[in-house]
Amino acid sequence: MENFTFYAPTYFDFGRGAESHVAERIRQFGGTKVLFHYGGGSIRTSGLYDRVKDCLDEAGIPFVELGGVKPNPRSGLVYQGIELCRKEGVDFILAVGGGSVIDSAKAIAAGSVYEGDFLDFYRKKTPIEKALPVGTILTIAAAGSEGSGNTVITDEETQKKKGAKSDVLRPRFSILNPELTCTLPPYQTAAGATDIMIHVCERYFSNTEEVEITDRLCEGILRTVIYETPRVLENPNHYEARANLMWAGMLAHNNVCGVGREQDWASHHLEHELSALYDVTHGAGLAVIAPLWMRHVLKKNPRKLVDFATRVWDVPLDEANPEATALRGIEAFEAFLKSIGMPLSFEEIGARKEDIGQMTDKLFGGRDTEGNYVKLTREDVMEIYESAVRE
Amino acid sequence: MENFTFYAPTYFDFGRGAESHVAERIRQFGGTKVLFHYGGGSIRTSGLYDRVKDCLDEAGIPFVELGGVKPNPRSGLVYQGIELCRKEGVDFILAVGGGSVIDSAKAIAAGSVYEGDFLDFYRKKTPIEKALPVGTILTIAAAGSEGSGNTVITDEETQKKKGAKSDVLRPRFSILNPELTCTLPPYQTAAGATDIMIHVCERYFSNTEEVEITDRLCEGILRTVIYETPRVLENPNHYEARANLMWAGMLAHNNVCGVGREQDWASHHLEHELSALYDVTHGAGLAVIAPLWMRHVLKKNPRKLVDFATRVWDVPLDEANPEATALRGIEAFEAFLKSIGMPLSFEEIGARKEDIGQMTDKLFGGRDTEGNYVKLTREDVMEIYESAVRE
Repeated sequence: MENFTFYAPTYFDFGRGAESHVAERIRQFGGTKVLFHYGGGSIRTSGLYDRVKDCLDEAGIPFVELGGVKPNPRSGLVYQGIELCRKEGVDFILAVGGGSVIDSAKAIAAGSVYEGDFLDFYRKKTPIEKALPVGTILTIAAAGSEGSGNTVITDEETQKKKGAKSDVLRPRFSILNPELTCTLPPYQTAAGATDIMIHVCERYFSNTEEVEITDRLCEGILRTVIYETPRVLENPNHYEARANLMWAGMLAHNNVCGVGREQDWASHHLEHELSALYDVTHGAGLAVIAPLWMRHVLKKNPRKLVDFATRVWDVPLDEANPEATALRGIEAFEAFLKSIGMPLSFEEIGARKEDIGQMTDKLFGGRDTEGNYVKLTREDVMEIYESAVRE
Repeated sequence: MENFTFYAPTYFDFGRGAESHVAERIRQFGGTKVLFHYGGGSIRTSGLYDRVKDCLDEAGIPFVELGGVKPNPRSGLVYQGIELCRKEGVDFILAVGGGSVIDSAKAIAAGSVYEGDFLDFYRKKTPIEKALPVGTILTIAAAGSEGSGNTVITDEETQKKKGAKSDVLRPRFSILNPELTCTLPPYQTAAGATDIMIHVCERYFSNTEEVEITDRLCEGILRTVIYETPRVLENPNHYEARANLMWAGMLAHNNVCGVGREQDWASHHLEHELSALYDVTHGAGLAVIAPLWMRHVLKKNPRKLVDFATRVWDVPLDEANPEATALRGIEAFEAFLKSIGMPLSFEEIGARKEDIGQMTDKLFGGRDTEGNYVKLTREDVMEIYESAVRE
């Protein structure tokens, strides 16, 4: 196990009706003037927008609004949010929505108290050392941004998705009411579940040895998602299954299952090129990439893939042929993704073979390798992308 | 899953040499005048006492000392600590040791800023709403107090162990260096591992249904302890096994695996009467009580005991006789405890049959039942104690 620090001071308020505490939570963490940040129409049609507005009004907490966050959130709206926060003297950002809204809120939070261009953080020019406090009301189990210090923004100038992270970006509070996720369409639910699984996999596939405790946490989260996702798809109003998925989504990405171990993140980076170019749902892009990444690295480094097969998918270990065991695990994973309605090929997400060169160029920039579990070369990445083309 | 809040804002600094950051961490969390609180001689013989003292001196952080915390920490020393903190204007408490030292530090932290008798908190007369900040350097994987808001103190007047809890008691930082645990004697190591397991079991044995995610976390922590403890006993200097056990110990009790579910705590309460009366090591007392509690509740409520057997101990499910499956799980647990040198009977810990009535009286006080998974009556508790007498 490697040395690490772990600091996850988010206050979680979980359960039915928890959003009614929003004003109390904002006060608890010192907010006096709020930016109410959200996405499109879903929180209006569900009535959540009105409930939050009423809570703030009743508590006498002044706020300004900024809606319009899109999936794969863009730099343009972040600049608007930063300007609004400065002009209005906002001291607390409330994100109501999914990972995109929360990631956008984090970017605004850090950008508002930084003199330069907020994209400096995402271009790794400067670390994020301070930010306005952020609180969230989560509406989808997926990104884990409600408990993490991570944020991903699409730079509209270059059409490149870029990540940044800092413990100061971890939300001060996050309100998780599983009922709010019951109206999600099946595709979004399944894509969210896939995102959760790959957040775990990026940590699980590690060359750090002797990390039994975090291995076991990873496996537990994966098994939960495998168990609960079909139940949620069968009965979208299954509160209990939604609840387990929602808490799993937070745990998958607040890094409690990733501390002390080298992590990979190649699948995410390969996917980011897809969602930046085609605006595909992130989880669906991961469903295409992750199993093919597994198939590609299998020959070079089967160790954790064997664990993945035996401990997560209950594949019996073939001691004479561990690679075959690992392959059965990958096949089980692919069958699961297919069963929950996720795509497994370029064709299904509208991605094109002729863009592979461009995506690979953008992915590498000036770097030589991608990922850690196996250090992928440019050729490896192209092979993974190409294996997604079924034509 | 039940509604819950979860707030665990401790900063963990984990790994080799982490104690050298102690001055930096105290500054990070605003300490300017420190109470250095510790137990007996072990931190002196190991050199840890000198290293901490040198760190504070070099950083120019003034401190006063209070050593002498005993296992099953006593109210008398807490009163001394409170007086010292007030007299010296202490604003930060550094606990260097195991759960007893940390629990004592938490009592001092809450008592120093409370006008009444600190035992009011433990007598449930008043909730703990504020406390001085506490930081820890942990020297044994066991109690989980390094990440929890819990504290247990023995009231010397009544010889009764009493617990209190509050999120304000969660340490601001905890330094976890597995190397510091390598010098622990095997018995203390095994008792610590047992304590970790029972912290999980008190949460696992629940009547709350549909808690797959926390079930899986519980099982993962238990499996880790089962895997790592024999490795540590075989090779006390096995850093990696010590590290996994140490992080498991924190996770077992910071409640990440216990949120949203009814918890039990009968085994702990039955054990507290043993350790208050005979000053037995808490984990050793738990080794005696917990399997017998399991055997006792098996007939009345086998459900989670079947999961415990199949998911933790890999007992194949006998569908025609799930109780037999559950019993095999309990037997596996008892065999494990025996294999790591833990006692399983009153005789082995010097407890006496003739004290059972008195312990049961003290346990119940004015209450009618104990625990939740099965609500134990006075007769149930006496039967569990009596089943520990092998004579």
